[in-house]
Amino acid sequence: MEGGVDHLAHERNKAQFDVEEMKIVWAGSRHAFDVSDRMACLVASDPAFKKDNRATLGRKELFNNTLRKAAHAWKRILELRLTDEEAAKLRSYIDEPNFTDLHWGMFVPAIKGQGTEEQQQKWLPLANTMQIIGCYAQTELGHGSNVQGLETTATFDPQTDEFIIHSPTLTSSKWWPGGLGKVSTHAIVYARLITDGQEHGVHGFIVQLRSLDDHLPLPGITIGDIGMKFGNGAYNTMDNGVLRFDHVRIPRDQMMMRVMQVTREGKCVRSSVPRQLIYGTMVFVRQTIVSGASSALSRAVCIATRYSAVRRQFGPQNGGVETQVIDYKTQQNRLFPLLAAAYAFRFVGEWLKWLYTDVNQRLQANDFSTLPEAHACTAGLKSLTTSFTADAIEECRKLCGGHGYLCSSGLPELFAVYVPTCTYEGDNVVLLLQVARFLMKTVSQLGSEKKPVGTTAYMGRVEHLMKCHCSVQKAEDWLNLNTILEAFEARAARMSVAVAQKLARFANPEEGFTELSPNLVEVSVAHCQLIVVSKFIEKLQQDIPGKGVKELLEMLCNIYALNLLHKHQGDFLSTGSITSKQGSLANDQLRSIYSQVRPNAIALVDAFNHTDPYLGSVLGRYDGTVYPKLYEEAWKDPLNDSVVPDGYREYIRPMLNNQLRNARL
Amino acid sequence: MEGGVDHLAHERNKAQFDVEEMKIVWAGSRHAFDVSDRMACLVASDPAFKKDNRATLGRKELFNNTLRKAAHAWKRILELRLTDEEAAKLRSYIDEPNFTDLHWGMFVPAIKGQGTEEQQQKWLPLANTMQIIGCYAQTELGHGSNVQGLETTATFDPQTDEFIIHSPTLTSSKWWPGGLGKVSTHAIVYARLITDGQEHGVHGFIVQLRSLDDHLPLPGITIGDIGMKFGNGAYNTMDNGVLRFDHVRIPRDQMMMRVMQVTREGKCVRSSVPRQLIYGTMVFVRQTIVSGASSALSRAVCIATRYSAVRRQFGPQNGGVETQVIDYKTQQNRLFPLLAAAYAFRFVGEWLKWLYTDVNQRLQANDFSTLPEAHACTAGLKSLTTSFTADAIEECRKLCGGHGYLCSSGLPELFAVYVPTCTYEGDNVVLLLQVARFLMKTVSQLGSEKKPVGTTAYMGRVEHLMKCHCSVQKAEDWLNLNTILEAFEARAARMSVAVAQKLARFANPEEGFTELSPNLVEVSVAHCQLIVVSKFIEKLQQDIPGKGVKELLEMLCNIYALNLLHKHQGDFLSTGSITSKQGSLANDQLRSIYSQVRPNAIALVDAFNHTDPYLGSVLGRYDGTVYPKLYEEAWKDPLNDSVVPDGYREYIRPMLNNQLRNARL
Repeated sequence: MEGGVDHLAHERNKAQFDVEEMKIVWAGSRHAFDVSDRMACLVASDPAFKKDNRATLGRKELFNNTLRKAAHAWKRILELRLTDEEAAKLRSYIDEPNFTDLHWGMFVPAIKGQGTEEQQQKWLPLANTMQIIGCYAQTELGHGSNVQGLETTATFDPQTDEFIIHSPTLTSSKWWPGGLGKVSTHAIVYARLITDGQEHGVHGFIVQLRSLDDHLPLPGITIGDIGMKFGNGAYNTMDNGVLRFDHVRIPRDQMMMRVMQVTREGKCVRSSVPRQLIYGTMVFVRQTIVSGASSALSRAVCIATRYSAVRRQFGPQNGGVETQVIDYKTQQNRLFPLLAAAYAFRFVGEWLKWLYTDVNQRLQANDFSTLPEAHACTAGLKSLTTSFTADAIEECRKLCGGHGYLCSSGLPELFAVYVPTCTYEGDNVVLLLQVARFLMKTVSQLGSEKKPVGTTAYMGRVEHLMKCHCSVQKAEDWLNLNTILEAFEARAARMSVAVAQKLARFANPEEGFTELSPNLVEVSVAHCQLIVVSKFIEKLQQDIPGKGVKELLEMLCNIYALNLLHKHQGDFLSTGSITSKQGSLANDQLRSIYSQVRPNAIALVDAFNHTDPYLGSVLGRYDGTVYPKLYEEAWKDPLNDSVVPDGYREYIRPMLNNQLRNARL
Repeated sequence: MEGGVDHLAHERNKAQFDVEEMKIVWAGSRHAFDVSDRMACLVASDPAFKKDNRATLGRKELFNNTLRKAAHAWKRILELRLTDEEAAKLRSYIDEPNFTDLHWGMFVPAIKGQGTEEQQQKWLPLANTMQIIGCYAQTELGHGSNVQGLETTATFDPQTDEFIIHSPTLTSSKWWPGGLGKVSTHAIVYARLITDGQEHGVHGFIVQLRSLDDHLPLPGITIGDIGMKFGNGAYNTMDNGVLRFDHVRIPRDQMMMRVMQVTREGKCVRSSVPRQLIYGTMVFVRQTIVSGASSALSRAVCIATRYSAVRRQFGPQNGGVETQVIDYKTQQNRLFPLLAAAYAFRFVGEWLKWLYTDVNQRLQANDFSTLPEAHACTAGLKSLTTSFTADAIEECRKLCGGHGYLCSSGLPELFAVYVPTCTYEGDNVVLLLQVARFLMKTVSQLGSEKKPVGTTAYMGRVEHLMKCHCSVQKAEDWLNLNTILEAFEARAARMSVAVAQKLARFANPEEGFTELSPNLVEVSVAHCQLIVVSKFIEKLQQDIPGKGVKELLEMLCNIYALNLLHKHQGDFLSTGSITSKQGSLANDQLRSIYSQVRPNAIALVDAFNHTDPYLGSVLGRYDGTVYPKLYEEAWKDPLNDSVVPDGYREYIRPMLNNQLRNARL
């Protein structure tokens, strides 16, 4: 707060729980809170990181500004000797996509994951000191999700001991890689390996793109930016790029050879390193995305909740002050489930961190047994949480009424910068189909020796789940989290079994899978919602200190689950997992929890610990001083530089004076 | 088409219906088609109206460009002596929000609707020739939906026979009116009328804002633009404005006095003109919005459909060419219901035009009996169609995969420019609550002498609808449109009755209404979906010429209805309107209709008759030449002006050379 009056103080005084303790729960630990809090303050207090002018900047200025911030951030990271954890947090609070995201998030991990010991020793020191800047060049103009469809070739030339990297067609142009367009000096390029006229699948190659002397593209390489993307600011700070190769030669040892090697003679030799290693990376990346979903959602919800407490519309028929919009049940019914989801995604994200550790430990011990389940589960959770969050940000914008449409609300950019998450790292629908494939396999193995594990363990109780009855008789019975859990398990299990039976009727299983894919997507959603609900409930079984903290989280868990139950009532009813009377009671219970959460709403979003500069929203200001600031912001628009607009003499005056006929326009 | 190869010709050859006849159906009549087609070609062929650079322009250039186009449009309208109908179409095809939208769409209609004969004679000739430019200044910084909460005052001064217009607080600043910020010379300002110390409600006043000599704001008036809004281009071409009055005096005869007059002595006198007249205008405006929904949706669907036929991903396991994504059932299941909705909204929009005529004729005859029903129905349809369309545009963007995120896809701007429709002219949730209020009243009057009329007529058969059973036994039974209609009627009626019974349990009806408002919103949605389905079915009962045209429309009607039935299965099951077996059969039937629609998909979007310049989408090009054009577009980005980016020397090189420590950033 900037030292003025706190217009939301009366709301904060209403809170029935310990906000400081909730901040720790949200952050995951006291250590995580401390790091986050320090880095957030570091960014918030440094004018070099200001971002409130992004919407009005042209592309070049915008990009140049981002380069400046990235350099400044790196300077600060070195000066302050920040740890990797701190540096990553710092970058995330700068809140502006740029080439370093790909350098640290994809290029360096790819070298670690796919490079041999020698390759790591050669490239990591260069990358870690940013003496080279790298990106990750996989997708092509004509090829996204289907990696096996990539067209770029890497042909081994035994004469020179080199690979020839080439783009044989227009559609083989690398397209989208962030950091590629204007900045990266190197890239991991994915290409079809060809030795001795034979194809050996798609592999990664380190290719230098630009001269380290003058930054010009090396011979045979054409690079550019792919142009403007959705929104003001948003991903336009990133140089997503296009890249074409005209027979570019690289040394043989720049193929990433941890899993497969090409020998001097051009022979392909698999190493003893298990191919499944790649799944470990996928689990890691997707865990990050799920955590990111809860962060993005928490920002949108924080803005919408605070402004809903500031804004007043209509009110008592006898006149007087209008009602805070947060007091309307329709507003609560739209907003509070999003608030609950932010917490739900936070906890499932935390659990995924554990899963990643677990998977890695097993990989080290050559235990691949849990991999398919872990892979399906992370794919599904990535899909579920990002789709939900994208929609929820836009819903939060609408919950702010007209003013949410202004860039100064922060919500348009939050939406525009978030939505690609639904497409990258696996299109959300494609991922759900992968989950479905795993679920169908799990169902087909029920009764066999192979017991379902992890998040599919509930399938082991399928006989019970197929016939159990929900015991709810009055609204309060829905407060029982085990009752909720069983309803979600029954729904998911029954939907899986039902579609598996439908599938069995097809002579050709693949044809059945294709034909029933819309149903299969729904089955996956049911399964993934169950995971989120169950991880929230598991969290509540832990010891959670702080006055009222656990009680509030229980209410949020209830809201998350019962709102889903209502939204997907068709699933629950058609599978007989609940009766329509029980569905109606769930709704009654929901409304009553809304009333209990209401006095805590502002404190619940305060617990996210977002600084005003990070939120970047006039509507979401901590102190609630919305209207004076909106007014102030308006005058900063370039159009207000002059009272009479450019173009008055040329276009407006001739119109008013009926002198357009002879005008040249 | 620009004269190259048509890469979608094989798709067009598959069509099983007469596309030219479908174009007439879509346009509404041959005359409407002719006008649209001529105006669309006029805009498409005039380079002055090009819009493909909007995303990269800064705010000032963007706005100046819009002023130029608006002046050029007016010049052409005068030169070609276009009719009002033609001029309106021309403006819509220019496809760039600007001040003339408010001048013609709000200012002129407000004078016609609320001005006396003399006022109309004075102001209309000036407005019709654009010697003055007007806007509509209603909403304020602190007040949107609740018109009665406006704070601006208009105090009658009997001494000078003037009104004093004043903004008493910051929150009373007029905020949002389009065309206000930089262009309008006049505004209809809504203010609380005060005479002799007494308040007389909110009324409209014509206020001159800027000098007609030099365009400077008149004394006592502060005006500016409210700043950047969501998206690239989009509504940033509009000067949405802020306006404050400091005791600005206007002559008494500039109050809009058709319904109420203030006499020379300051007395308020109601005229004999019925107040209900205002509803006629509302019906008109909302009918326009519903037509606009079908147009916007048709553009998004056209882009997504064409690109889905061009784009290939994955495919036969045995290699070979990848599969067109439009052949995937998941894609069809997401896309075809949107295609069907575009047609559905078109037809309900057409019907609303009839309703407007009907309402007006009755008003002339002092028959107000159908007004409440017409008002509720238009409010609900505005809400339903705009919410759906906003979501659908974003869904179409996602259906295009990563490339939908590029501005050159046209979809980001289409979304950003469309979404405010959900908020203006009545927030969509507030409108649904109005519908619910009317429905509850209708239910309470069942059995009385007052018979439900128009779109609520089905409530008159409530006894039958409460107990009827859906007769579907096999999937094809869902092809029967009467079966579908009855299921939708039963669902809507039963939901209305159920919530009415819940309401009756509250001692205080208002409290009940507030408490149950989330349920009431769902009841309204069910009712409005029924209206759309029933109007689609009515359309199909007409004579529709052209080979295969009617058959295709029947399929689309089926898709629209059965997809809704599936999405809202919870409603249908919990009310017992269908059984879960029947719900499952509906789904089977849906999939089978998808297969029948598939070969016609491209032709069905061709029938919208959108020109390539109007679509403004590389992905949606008529000829399907997507990839070469995407590649071409990329190089136009300002970032590609130079190979080495600005900022290389300052920021990138020092980073690579580890020389940042001493840099000043």
